[in-house]
Amino acid sequence: DPKLKVFTCNANPELAKEIAEHIGVPLGNAQAVRFSDGECQIKLNESVRGCDVFVIQPTSAPVNEHLMELLVMVDALKRASAKSINVVIPYYGYARQDRKARARDPITAKLVANLIETAGAQRVITMDLHATQIQGFFDIPVDHLLGVPILAKHFSEKGLSDIVVVSPDHGGVTRARKLAERLEAPIAIIDKRRPEPNVAEVMNIVGNIEGKTAIIIDDIIDTAGTITLAASALVEAGARDVYACCTHPVLSGPAIERIGNSNIRELIVTNSIPLTEEQIIDKITVLSVAPIIGEAIIRVHEELSVSKLFD
Amino acid sequence: DPKLKVFTCNANPELAKEIAEHIGVPLGNAQAVRFSDGECQIKLNESVRGCDVFVIQPTSAPVNEHLMELLVMVDALKRASAKSINVVIPYYGYARQDRKARARDPITAKLVANLIETAGAQRVITMDLHATQIQGFFDIPVDHLLGVPILAKHFSEKGLSDIVVVSPDHGGVTRARKLAERLEAPIAIIDKRRPEPNVAEVMNIVGNIEGKTAIIIDDIIDTAGTITLAASALVEAGARDVYACCTHPVLSGPAIERIGNSNIRELIVTNSIPLTEEQIIDKITVLSVAPIIGEAIIRVHEELSVSKLFD
Ligand SMILES: Nc1ncnc2c1ncn2[C@@H]1O[C@H](COP(=O)(O)O)[C@@H](O)[C@H]1O
Ligand SMILES: Nc1ncnc2c1ncn2[C@@H]1O[C@H](COP(=O)(O)O)[C@@H](O)[C@H]1O
Repeated sequence: DPKLKVFTCNANPELAKEIAEHIGVPLGNAQAVRFSDGECQIKLNESVRGCDVFVIQPTSAPVNEHLMELLVMVDALKRASAKSINVVIPYYGYARQDRKARARDPITAKLVANLIETAGAQRVITMDLHATQIQGFFDIPVDHLLGVPILAKHFSEKGLSDIVVVSPDHGGVTRARKLAERLEAPIAIIDKRRPEPNVAEVMNIVGNIEGKTAIIIDDIIDTAGTITLAASALVEAGARDVYACCTHPVLSGPAIERIGNSNIRELIVTNSIPLTEEQIIDKITVLSVAPIIGEAIIRVHEELSVSKLFD
Repeated sequence: DPKLKVFTCNANPELAKEIAEHIGVPLGNAQAVRFSDGECQIKLNESVRGCDVFVIQPTSAPVNEHLMELLVMVDALKRASAKSINVVIPYYGYARQDRKARARDPITAKLVANLIETAGAQRVITMDLHATQIQGFFDIPVDHLLGVPILAKHFSEKGLSDIVVVSPDHGGVTRARKLAERLEAPIAIIDKRRPEPNVAEVMNIVGNIEGKTAIIIDDIIDTAGTITLAASALVEAGARDVYACCTHPVLSGPAIERIGNSNIRELIVTNSIPLTEEQIIDKITVLSVAPIIGEAIIRVHEELSVSKLFD
């Protein structure tokens, strides 16, 4: 059988280590370093000839550095005769630039998909894409994993009662419903409306939250404006307690301050993106995606080995 | 005739302005900014429908930021129905990663060429590629401009006598010969040899430099190790005076300190890469490439217009 090898660049080496341990292989010997002028240098220190290679690299901040590391790594693996090159992108950067929201917008999520294919990736494993349409931006297989089961397990184990799962916008209803089903809870939706141009948005809550424990769920928490305002609106409208969760803790700019000052009791995130030291605050609980990514890699590797029989 | 429009991102807006002035068009209204999480946002604030568009962007440090800005800009222009997208890359970053110098090296210069084409560029204008082979990495037309005429003009006007043009290594002899021809001067070559492994390199000078004014020429000066050691070797071997010149002043790490402390009298560079404030020292003279790039753009635009007749 072709050997399975796992490599990482600099975006989330801890997660890569955990994944390799879950699979039961050592992490491959390679480094992404920098030349004196800042150009990315990939040192691939072991043979990958004939191997099924998996590169773990979320394209989190600094996104352009991490994306380029991934592309150069894939180029190196391709030229080193890897049998298959599978990129594992737990957090897919640029996912929010997925359509022309304004005239003359780029569609960077599609550009990035093209760049990854051009470099030579043959398969993508990713998680909770901001829009599931992004799968269609690729012409190679995409395995799309979900964070909901991990988040649901955490909330189940907490034994909270009288839960309502809240989507902070219309776009997130499907995700909220999935979590609600697992928790056997109803859902509510926050309906943001701007009554007139240049007047502040009003948050209407659709659904019953009075006296309940609200769990807000989103895919990405970036500056945390949406989620902390939603938490306030929920408390004002009579929620007993507010939890929040997301798969991807981008947490840029004022995010940590806002979360600290908010009436969110606990924020549950995953390690698709590593937290920096300043981002590790008491309120935030991190759950690991290593087991589900590890399982996905094992499954893909088996598939690749089986398909060899039909080659 | 389709309109010519010139845009820039953040790598060298001053050069772009100069080029636009040389051509006699206003600089296009577009910005490359950043979202809170560091993702690149391109704001294309004017129509480019049916236009021949030229984007000026050297991929100098921070190379990954500047490259990504260029790619996203090209994506935006493509989706905004530009008639032709021409990228002007006065300095082509990653050019030194142009071959597998070691086993399992990536060939990032080729990867970058693929990325630029994938984004949608239809033509490249560049200058003094580290290896002319890089032209062949593209499947679209590449206009390859040379810095030598600009550098030669500067030295001619100085009225130096008894010149010898020095190539700091074997790879640069063709370039040195071109400058020597224009200055009607002989050439010399520095021949670096490592007598035994782990013994310092010895610099042999091939050619007569005794009592002469040496002008060392290179394409890129990065950490300035090569060029300052060459200058020492030349003075030791009896050169009367040492000048140095290059097209691309990368000048990373210890470069400025080394140049300041060296016996190089004057270093002449171009503005293919802008100097930072700390890099602007008395010894360094900057010549503008705006006129030759401006002329190249005018020529390409005419070509594109003429070819329309045959479409
Ligand atoms: N990195 C980013 N940070 C903040 N907003 C972004 C980012 N990328 C894209 N956007 C904007 O987010 C909007 C799409 O988000 P959404 O409506 O949640 O799908 C568009 O208006 C984009 O211009
Ligand atoms: N950005 C860079 N800075 C320093 N060295 C580099 C850089 N990119 C590539 N190289 C190395 O430079 C060598 C090629 O330079 P050269 O022999 O002058 O063509 C190769 O060994 C590369 O690994």
